[in-house]
Amino acid sequence: MSASAPPRKRAALTPPGEREAETSRNTALRINGARLQQRIAQLAEIGAIDGGGCARLALTDADRAGRDQVCDWMRELGLAVTVDAIGNVVGVRAGRQSGAAVMTGSHIDTVRTGGRFDGNYGVLAGLEVIATLNDAGIVTEHPLAVAFFTNEEGARFAPDMMGSLVYTGALPLGEALATRGIDGTTVGEELQRIAYAGPAPVPAAAPRAFIELHVEQGPVLDREGTQIGVVESVQGISWTEIEILGTSNHAGTTPMALRRDAGWVAGAIIHFVRELAQELGGNQVATVGRIEFFPNLVNVVPNRAVLTVDLRNTDEARLQMAEARLAAHLDALRDAEKVDIATRSLARFAPVPFAAQMCDRIEHHARTQGLSTRRMPSGAGHDAQMLAAVCPTAMIFVPSVDGVSHNVREHTHPEHIEAGANVLLAVLCELAGATPPAGALA
Amino acid sequence: MSASAPPRKRAALTPPGEREAETSRNTALRINGARLQQRIAQLAEIGAIDGGGCARLALTDADRAGRDQVCDWMRELGLAVTVDAIGNVVGVRAGRQSGAAVMTGSHIDTVRTGGRFDGNYGVLAGLEVIATLNDAGIVTEHPLAVAFFTNEEGARFAPDMMGSLVYTGALPLGEALATRGIDGTTVGEELQRIAYAGPAPVPAAAPRAFIELHVEQGPVLDREGTQIGVVESVQGISWTEIEILGTSNHAGTTPMALRRDAGWVAGAIIHFVRELAQELGGNQVATVGRIEFFPNLVNVVPNRAVLTVDLRNTDEARLQMAEARLAAHLDALRDAEKVDIATRSLARFAPVPFAAQMCDRIEHHARTQGLSTRRMPSGAGHDAQMLAAVCPTAMIFVPSVDGVSHNVREHTHPEHIEAGANVLLAVLCELAGATPPAGALA
Repeated sequence: MSASAPPRKRAALTPPGEREAETSRNTALRINGARLQQRIAQLAEIGAIDGGGCARLALTDADRAGRDQVCDWMRELGLAVTVDAIGNVVGVRAGRQSGAAVMTGSHIDTVRTGGRFDGNYGVLAGLEVIATLNDAGIVTEHPLAVAFFTNEEGARFAPDMMGSLVYTGALPLGEALATRGIDGTTVGEELQRIAYAGPAPVPAAAPRAFIELHVEQGPVLDREGTQIGVVESVQGISWTEIEILGTSNHAGTTPMALRRDAGWVAGAIIHFVRELAQELGGNQVATVGRIEFFPNLVNVVPNRAVLTVDLRNTDEARLQMAEARLAAHLDALRDAEKVDIATRSLARFAPVPFAAQMCDRIEHHARTQGLSTRRMPSGAGHDAQMLAAVCPTAMIFVPSVDGVSHNVREHTHPEHIEAGANVLLAVLCELAGATPPAGALA
Repeated sequence: MSASAPPRKRAALTPPGEREAETSRNTALRINGARLQQRIAQLAEIGAIDGGGCARLALTDADRAGRDQVCDWMRELGLAVTVDAIGNVVGVRAGRQSGAAVMTGSHIDTVRTGGRFDGNYGVLAGLEVIATLNDAGIVTEHPLAVAFFTNEEGARFAPDMMGSLVYTGALPLGEALATRGIDGTTVGEELQRIAYAGPAPVPAAAPRAFIELHVEQGPVLDREGTQIGVVESVQGISWTEIEILGTSNHAGTTPMALRRDAGWVAGAIIHFVRELAQELGGNQVATVGRIEFFPNLVNVVPNRAVLTVDLRNTDEARLQMAEARLAAHLDALRDAEKVDIATRSLARFAPVPFAAQMCDRIEHHARTQGLSTRRMPSGAGHDAQMLAAVCPTAMIFVPSVDGVSHNVREHTHPEHIEAGANVLLAVLCELAGATPPAGALA
């Protein structure tokens, strides 16, 4: 935000170290906000939808076009670009030493009604950091990498965060490639089709550290007026697909008491799921986002209904309690309504704590730049939670207006876009060991 | 059922009359059950679906193929076939006198998961009556007509019973032709495409009388073991499409209390609608058969949901009460959930009473043939309810196993198929004034 703000005193919990002196000098180095906004706007034109949003579902033609654009920018910035077998793209800027890179990144796929910042911001801010270092002639000790991971959203293929799952070895490549999407295609076929089934092996070697910059996608920072969220953990996620089988029948002639109405049972689950979240309280959330009736006709009692339940909690024990109560309710409905109910887990991630030392560094640099901060969990899933299993990881959040997300009205003010990227720049410089030339010093 | 069963004593409520003596003689005339089953099986092959059912949605290619088949049969039986401007097909067998025909018929379109008897049975039983009269060399005083009406099911274009609505002048032709279906096409375009936009004018001249033979589509006759249903009325029908507009948002980061969840409101309506039917009691039924969420993704709170509510009652005052209570509940949801809710009537028919004299004749002939009978309302809508506005009308029901309807498992036993057609034969002979040659006498 403010290049002239005096560096604040280091927070007490930050251990003193040699890096500190160097980092303080880096506070004068700032990214170019206009250039970053220009790239965000240009990427948003690919798969643009009414209202200013984007529809680039993973591995569609629109996703390919977005990937091609970002790869072009990576090469223009001098990065060595590799594509791995699940389509993750990594651009590396060499350091004085070889070895593992300090990595930043996120994703560029979107939901069908996505905003322009979700995912894209973290990737393009990473490129802006690279551009800033290039402009300043700064060479880092360790390599720096900017990555975007395949199918973070899970809107076409479940599970979400598929690319980072495979990257870190948590999901076998073959299983991911065989995943069939909502349109009947498989990940493997679609990767081949858009020419992003690359030669780099998975699981990949672990980065030296990983930082993901992202819009909050929730209302907390915006409501408080806080500029930077220091993300300490990610909520656990449980996605369940529920299929109900009853009997289809004429809507006019079948007495209510004789029905086995799969649609009514679906409605009862929607009703229950909100009650569950309210009774568990805390940060428990529960959502039925997808539903289908069969045969889906006005005058036919549905014989089949399929719906999804999305449960999230930062506390694994409470998330398991929510799952158990949902399962018990399904048992009760099965008995009372004489329907068959089958469930299938679409995704299950335990809550993930981030590295305390990484969070400290984010908080320190934000405050050094005069920015207000708040420690918080992430309510959404992110690739960073997969990377956390293999290297020190944390996330930086910036405010999202009204918390609107997965919606074309998603918006983050330019000053917050710029502030987040400057914090990312400072943290990456410290982690990678940047030695700025004299001109870049404060 | 039994050609040798002695004619039962006439029920006390049947007024004596000249027709009576003639009708008693007709009790020996019987349809050919095997020939009727053969036609039912042959028509069921068109648009056949797994399990023995049919999918011939109105004005599709499958519907055209079915229409062509039935028209061929009509011509083979010597009927003069006309097609009107909404695609209704009428085959007329001349009588000694010209003038209005005594008409029977039903429909041959089906829902997407239809059985083979619904509608088709009434039309093909009408043809079997014609074949029987032809074989016996019987000429009737008045013409006899067999009709099938366009889009009775309403599964592709709303309202249902469209053809009979236009035939009787209850729906303007232009409005019907402009109706847009679930696939975006219009009735007018599709009629032209399948070459069933005919020259006969609508509204048509009223028939002399109308009888529709149909499977019950409900469980009453089957459970009781009653052979013939004498249908005295048709339930009133109210179809409403409800559109809910909320805000789409990230399923993980939006606190429950801050949501405007269109999907949850849809679930609440499903829940309410069954309670409504249970509280009103009697023969009130209520069904949510169709639903859609937008964007319909597992991790997005739906910003839009569209669903239909089907309400039916034989009592108009109680049906209006059900509609009013649904409207009040939508108002309450609108306020409590801060969503927008719009409703659109897809169809609205008041309960229809049939002609008492016609019901008497059906009951009389069934009993004369040794068949058990029951007076009952129809829970489903039928073309007969439209004809009732322009001529004396009633319906004959036969049992449907377990009441399964709009489902490939729909079934009626051959003896019931045959019995219903024999009652139809006797009633049509009486109404049209049949004078059998000596060989056909009992």
